[in-house]
Amino acid sequence: MTIRDIYPTRTGREPVMLYRTDDPTVYGTATDGPIDADTLDSYGDNGFLTIDQLVSPEELTVYQAELNRLLVDPALNGDERVVREKNSDEIRSIFEVHKISEAFGALLSDDRLAGRARQILGSDVYIHQSRVNYKPGFKGNPFYWHSDFETWHAEDGMPRMRAVSLSLALTDNHAYNGGLMIMPGSHKTFVSCVGETPDDHYRESLKEQEVGTPDETSLSVLAEKYGIELFTGPAGSATMFDCNCMHGSNGNITPFPRSNVFVVYNSVENTCVEPFSAPRPRPDFIGTRDFTPVKRK
Amino acid sequence: MTIRDIYPTRTGREPVMLYRTDDPTVYGTATDGPIDADTLDSYGDNGFLTIDQLVSPEELTVYQAELNRLLVDPALNGDERVVREKNSDEIRSIFEVHKISEAFGALLSDDRLAGRARQILGSDVYIHQSRVNYKPGFKGNPFYWHSDFETWHAEDGMPRMRAVSLSLALTDNHAYNGGLMIMPGSHKTFVSCVGETPDDHYRESLKEQEVGTPDETSLSVLAEKYGIELFTGPAGSATMFDCNCMHGSNGNITPFPRSNVFVVYNSVENTCVEPFSAPRPRPDFIGTRDFTPVKRK
Repeated sequence: MTIRDIYPTRTGREPVMLYRTDDPTVYGTATDGPIDADTLDSYGDNGFLTIDQLVSPEELTVYQAELNRLLVDPALNGDERVVREKNSDEIRSIFEVHKISEAFGALLSDDRLAGRARQILGSDVYIHQSRVNYKPGFKGNPFYWHSDFETWHAEDGMPRMRAVSLSLALTDNHAYNGGLMIMPGSHKTFVSCVGETPDDHYRESLKEQEVGTPDETSLSVLAEKYGIELFTGPAGSATMFDCNCMHGSNGNITPFPRSNVFVVYNSVENTCVEPFSAPRPRPDFIGTRDFTPVKRK
Repeated sequence: MTIRDIYPTRTGREPVMLYRTDDPTVYGTATDGPIDADTLDSYGDNGFLTIDQLVSPEELTVYQAELNRLLVDPALNGDERVVREKNSDEIRSIFEVHKISEAFGALLSDDRLAGRARQILGSDVYIHQSRVNYKPGFKGNPFYWHSDFETWHAEDGMPRMRAVSLSLALTDNHAYNGGLMIMPGSHKTFVSCVGETPDDHYRESLKEQEVGTPDETSLSVLAEKYGIELFTGPAGSATMFDCNCMHGSNGNITPFPRSNVFVVYNSVENTCVEPFSAPRPRPDFIGTRDFTPVKRK
């Protein structure tokens, strides 16, 4: 059986902007969980929502300590799930952190996080990807604009737009230390990218992506239409955003590092198939093939 | 006659932080000119002031057009005053713009700009350097933290801290497109840098500076003590800042470019001598040896 690909990417010669007409952004309602009706509506319109304080100050201390412990954990030496900066040996991300760390594992299956994801996606969810990100001070590199869904569709075989990401700040997000930027409303447009996915593309793309990056014309159109929202907030605050939001972040020359824990919940009704534009799926620690739902608590 | 160097830099093996005890930040008083007493006081404390609208909307249109005209002016082909980005051919800055462009020349000698500089510095002033800066969208590079005075002292022979810079925004400065950052109050500390100035250092340093950059420890100390101010404001707004402010800017991945005209006024009582830490002075278009005062109007 062939699934019709309604989001073709990395196949054509020219970039294309497609409207998202078939995939809702919000599946659930306010009665299903912790997110209120206004916030759900706004999430549908803008593609994101923010939570001022997702975890208590006491919990935050625990997660910050765990973040720092992982940085120097000798058990992770040589582990492929640890991704380093392109021009230095500093750690950029540690993937599959819900399996590596008991503390983060418990957090990511907590109802405050997974429950909100279930409410938005209207079904049980599983963790497609998780990681902690470190953006060091002085020389933190930018993450260029991209839609996560474009990559997950092309390289992991995620069929439709029915996934949500959550980023929990473990350090303060100032306006000046390379915080997350989203073009509000951009999740309603799919920017099809140019260029064929190379074999084992993930090895390079996790450090600096080239294939799968949107063209400058499409980005200008979206930025003119939607503007740019830069997220600031103290450690402990969180942002949830739709898998197709156009997002990125600038570099960081300030002394203040920026770290977060990042998780992608995908609907169990949207499990991954064969990649739509890559020779084979990426490794499990980047896009899992284990679709076991997060247990409801 | 040898001038005692009270700001030694690029001569020692370790970075040093020196207090600025001998050089005032403000020489004039509120009765001398357009800046009011509170703003002058605040300038003394923080090392900068902002002006919401330095030029009228009509004038702004003229300067924006002139900025764009210079970008494609065939007369500037091969001109050494045009500095390009390190990894592309895009123009980063055009120096000595007050001589290259009649419009900018008139602006930079205007009383709204030069008059404020005279008031702060308590004397006539001359233009030590002028330029327009283009920070292109999508791939604008960062300017790492630095004190301009450190370079002007080491490479141009500026004896003391008695100069002021003015940056007039020609595009909107958002929080997310790589605007100017200053550590407020940092102008009261001189961070002596490590490393000898190479011959013709300016050719590289205008694109990406290494020698003359402060060490990370000093930057962390200053940032912890003073915090960071990120300047936002519409085209037409301006920032004036002391020559020894620790400042820099992040890169810019957004589609929105950031351009400004930048001028350095130095006191005629502080004219440049032989460089304090370089084999010879930089070329005139970067740090002039022509000390003719800007005419009072």
